[in-house]
Amino acid sequence: MTRPEASGEIVTHRLPIVFAGARIDRADPVRSDPARLAELMQPHARLLRLDGLEPVLPAGGGLSWGTLAEADPAAELVFLGLRDGEACFAAVAPGLAGRAAVPMPEVWRMIGALPDEELALYGGARMLVDWHARHRFCARCGAPTVLAKGGWQRSCAASECRADHFPRVDPVTIMLVEHEGDLLLGRQPRFPPRSYSALAGFVEPGETVEEAVAREVQEEAGIAVTEVRYVASQPWPFPSSLMIGCHARALSRQLTIDATELEDARWFTRREVELALAGDPAAPLLVPPRRAIAHQLLVWWLAQD
Amino acid sequence: MTRPEASGEIVTHRLPIVFAGARIDRADPVRSDPARLAELMQPHARLLRLDGLEPVLPAGGGLSWGTLAEADPAAELVFLGLRDGEACFAAVAPGLAGRAAVPMPEVWRMIGALPDEELALYGGARMLVDWHARHRFCARCGAPTVLAKGGWQRSCAASECRADHFPRVDPVTIMLVEHEGDLLLGRQPRFPPRSYSALAGFVEPGETVEEAVAREVQEEAGIAVTEVRYVASQPWPFPSSLMIGCHARALSRQLTIDATELEDARWFTRREVELALAGDPAAPLLVPPRRAIAHQLLVWWLAQD
Repeated sequence: MTRPEASGEIVTHRLPIVFAGARIDRADPVRSDPARLAELMQPHARLLRLDGLEPVLPAGGGLSWGTLAEADPAAELVFLGLRDGEACFAAVAPGLAGRAAVPMPEVWRMIGALPDEELALYGGARMLVDWHARHRFCARCGAPTVLAKGGWQRSCAASECRADHFPRVDPVTIMLVEHEGDLLLGRQPRFPPRSYSALAGFVEPGETVEEAVAREVQEEAGIAVTEVRYVASQPWPFPSSLMIGCHARALSRQLTIDATELEDARWFTRREVELALAGDPAAPLLVPPRRAIAHQLLVWWLAQD
Repeated sequence: MTRPEASGEIVTHRLPIVFAGARIDRADPVRSDPARLAELMQPHARLLRLDGLEPVLPAGGGLSWGTLAEADPAAELVFLGLRDGEACFAAVAPGLAGRAAVPMPEVWRMIGALPDEELALYGGARMLVDWHARHRFCARCGAPTVLAKGGWQRSCAASECRADHFPRVDPVTIMLVEHEGDLLLGRQPRFPPRSYSALAGFVEPGETVEEAVAREVQEEAGIAVTEVRYVASQPWPFPSSLMIGCHARALSRQLTIDATELEDARWFTRREVELALAGDPAAPLLVPPRRAIAHQLLVWWLAQD
């Protein structure tokens, strides 16, 4: 197996990464200071209005803020941080894990029009609230856990265990694979018709980012890569990923597609990707929406010499 | 708050990242194929000999391999992959989570002499075995979980839940912060005397790698950074981190140290870092051992123009 080396290159323009750039001070010291936290957790403190995991959207659009006074007394409160000096919280509704998940197209219909800064704030809050909803018990001993450190920890309530648990962030590699100027993109069965995107997969225990990229491309497309370069990253709150965007060079062109992962994978020319990004109906593919890092990686790629 | 942009640069030499480079085919399709897995899970299949989480070291040094025939019948078996065509497993000893952890200096005494390729294989196995030991119950409902997919999943046994859980990999940023040619390094109280290392911290829900770097440096040292660049990554099996090594440029020099995290932080000159890496007794600091990515980042930094 090829062992790719760690490498990168200067990204000369700023990528407009969506779900990033939340204008909030996470105020880490507050989390570990129960007195300061209690002081901020007042009825007039700001509460991000959520209906389960989805935002409550006022008629005028944008996120909606209430105060802690309106929170369900049975809800757990998560401290998001300080925004313009004001303490901001989100509530974990009781029984949230038991609710049916809202289908993703519906979620996107609700949040797709949010300004980027609000999308970033919402995404971070959603990841945290969702984690609390799905981690109510101690994975070590099975006892109930209680929220701690303003929602940045859960602690086992069993006196003989007392294990601490932390919000989960799962690193995922997502990669543009290039061969002689062409780009490898694939489609999963769940994609909209004609849509292709970058290959992707979770980083596993015991591998570097570069090794994960090489393994995923080998598994899904049957080709070896070299010169893996980091390009950019994105938090992706469905439910808790850190997308690590990379570029790699393929050592060969003949694909062997893993049909359990991909419905198709193909090499596309620079011109084809260009047409697709421009929304040209003559393009032989549709590319992911701009909120996905895969889209931004394509924009970055076209901007390279 | 400064929003750093995603950027990197060509790393012109290969960094000898420890815990990476395991010579094993993870054979992902096998995990999802119960028949194939059963076929490989024969008494003569290879078993990595562990005593809890630590390797059983034969007199001649190196990892020790037995066969599945010698595994505790009550142990869960984790499929590590194929090595030279042979199926390799590790066992999760019953009651492992209840054992007292072996202190890190003792762990290092045991594994420090392993060749890099064995260290990588051991590190990946340790992460996985440790995860199983500490995740025996469903975080969603509290019921017991059972090993699935050859150890790359645990599934809730409760018929009304059936949640799936996956091995955890926690992304951590670790960064060299530079200001006019000097480097910011800090020390935690637990470090050996005179030792300094790169600042580091977990990536949180809702932030990019670059944002995590900027936040950590702001929190721990009180300074703003820009031009965050990815350099290299490392799996770190104590217990389950993915170290994401970066470089950033400080916008100012005056430090405000977070005493809850750091005992000290200082700017060191290139010459001082050079002396420390060379092991010169006249150096004003000790640097981390070569197995830590912080060491490799320093080597990388000195190799830059």
